[in-house]
Amino acid sequence: MLYFIGLGLNDARDITVKGLEAVKSCKYIYLENYTSILESSKEELEEFYQKEVILADRDLVEKQADEILIRSEEEDVAFLVVGDIFGATTHTDLMMRAKEKNIKTKFIHNASILTAVGIVGLELYKYGKTTSIPFNNENVDTPIKVFNKNKEHNLHTLFLLDLDPKNNNFLTINDAADYLIKKGVNKELIAIGCAKIGNEHQEIKVTTLENLTKENFTKYPQCLIIPGDLHFMEEDALELWK
Amino acid sequence: MLYFIGLGLNDARDITVKGLEAVKSCKYIYLENYTSILESSKEELEEFYQKEVILADRDLVEKQADEILIRSEEEDVAFLVVGDIFGATTHTDLMMRAKEKNIKTKFIHNASILTAVGIVGLELYKYGKTTSIPFNNENVDTPIKVFNKNKEHNLHTLFLLDLDPKNNNFLTINDAADYLIKKGVNKELIAIGCAKIGNEHQEIKVTTLENLTKENFTKYPQCLIIPGDLHFMEEDALELWK
Repeated sequence: MLYFIGLGLNDARDITVKGLEAVKSCKYIYLENYTSILESSKEELEEFYQKEVILADRDLVEKQADEILIRSEEEDVAFLVVGDIFGATTHTDLMMRAKEKNIKTKFIHNASILTAVGIVGLELYKYGKTTSIPFNNENVDTPIKVFNKNKEHNLHTLFLLDLDPKNNNFLTINDAADYLIKKGVNKELIAIGCAKIGNEHQEIKVTTLENLTKENFTKYPQCLIIPGDLHFMEEDALELWK
Repeated sequence: MLYFIGLGLNDARDITVKGLEAVKSCKYIYLENYTSILESSKEELEEFYQKEVILADRDLVEKQADEILIRSEEEDVAFLVVGDIFGATTHTDLMMRAKEKNIKTKFIHNASILTAVGIVGLELYKYGKTTSIPFNNENVDTPIKVFNKNKEHNLHTLFLLDLDPKNNNFLTINDAADYLIKKGVNKELIAIGCAKIGNEHQEIKVTTLENLTKENFTKYPQCLIIPGDLHFMEEDALELWK
């Protein structure tokens, strides 16, 4: 059996009760550690689970997935993912390979940044396509194209910011706002910077895109939102974070 | 203190460890029971929490929110929401009213149908705006307008289907497919019916929209997806559910 288990957005205790029971029942526990990051270290997770945790980097998940799959044929194996379980294509790929081999699978979902941003007060239904701003973005135009289309239809745009958890490297809201302005987005637009959403010490600031190039955020990961048309209730909600 | 706590998509054990600890520490526990539904009854939740649960219908949350807020000024109060915590506008409204009264708030996120649909294998980033199909939809055109715009930009569309948990009444995938065809959507389009996503016994079927008017689904709640342009990996993933 191969369990896909979401860990949520913050620390060890964001796992669900069902997910924790599953982890405790598994012989091998892999933690996907390249698409996002928890506040809890591998060692803290191991202490919480009372189990050994194997860090699975991109190479392991994409190229050496056979190890995970072969073990899942004989034993109960947990594949842990920060956030919800299908945020990244590689996880879908692992599920497909398991199904092809007739390995039993179970899925235990959890919180994702894609809905946790609901806290800023913009209607989740009114987000258009989500886009990511990568490091080394000088020649990257996709986020701008996505934003322009969303804006044209009065939809909100969520920009996820690149991260390299292994090297503790994160694209910042400041950098992202700089990038957007350089690529021609109006610097006077209202924009929302969010750091470590879902955490007790999350930082949410509503201001102009220009101000976001300088605002101080101290936590990671970060994301940036530019609203489309605002309903008056959304306007009121944004006031809370100004 | 007012805790907003997501319960996830299925049963009592989908709450997070952190959420359960918070519930156990609270004096009053309200369960919002009108925007979605869990498999666990009020009594099962009470047994799991070892606490009394107060059912909060729309009237209580929207008109009598003062009761929740006044209690939160003095005591720890939990407001439980099926799925993630900000799926519905009324929850944002409750948060805003709490903040206006300087009541301390804490947010404990959980899985949402909006990302749990990732399991069907379509990239979450490539969904356009989400829309809902209501009961009594003869003169309702919004879902069609949203779908047409998404389709125009090759984006996937998630249709959430209306539900009235109190009266155990759910709009079905069959009804939704009927509605879409009547409103002019091409019946030959590939469409995906999903019942009770995230559950061990979830039902996912990939077929044509026309076939979805007749396919048998036995569980609730249900939703329907019409894909936009498919990447070959998405095509492969959909094959799993045919």
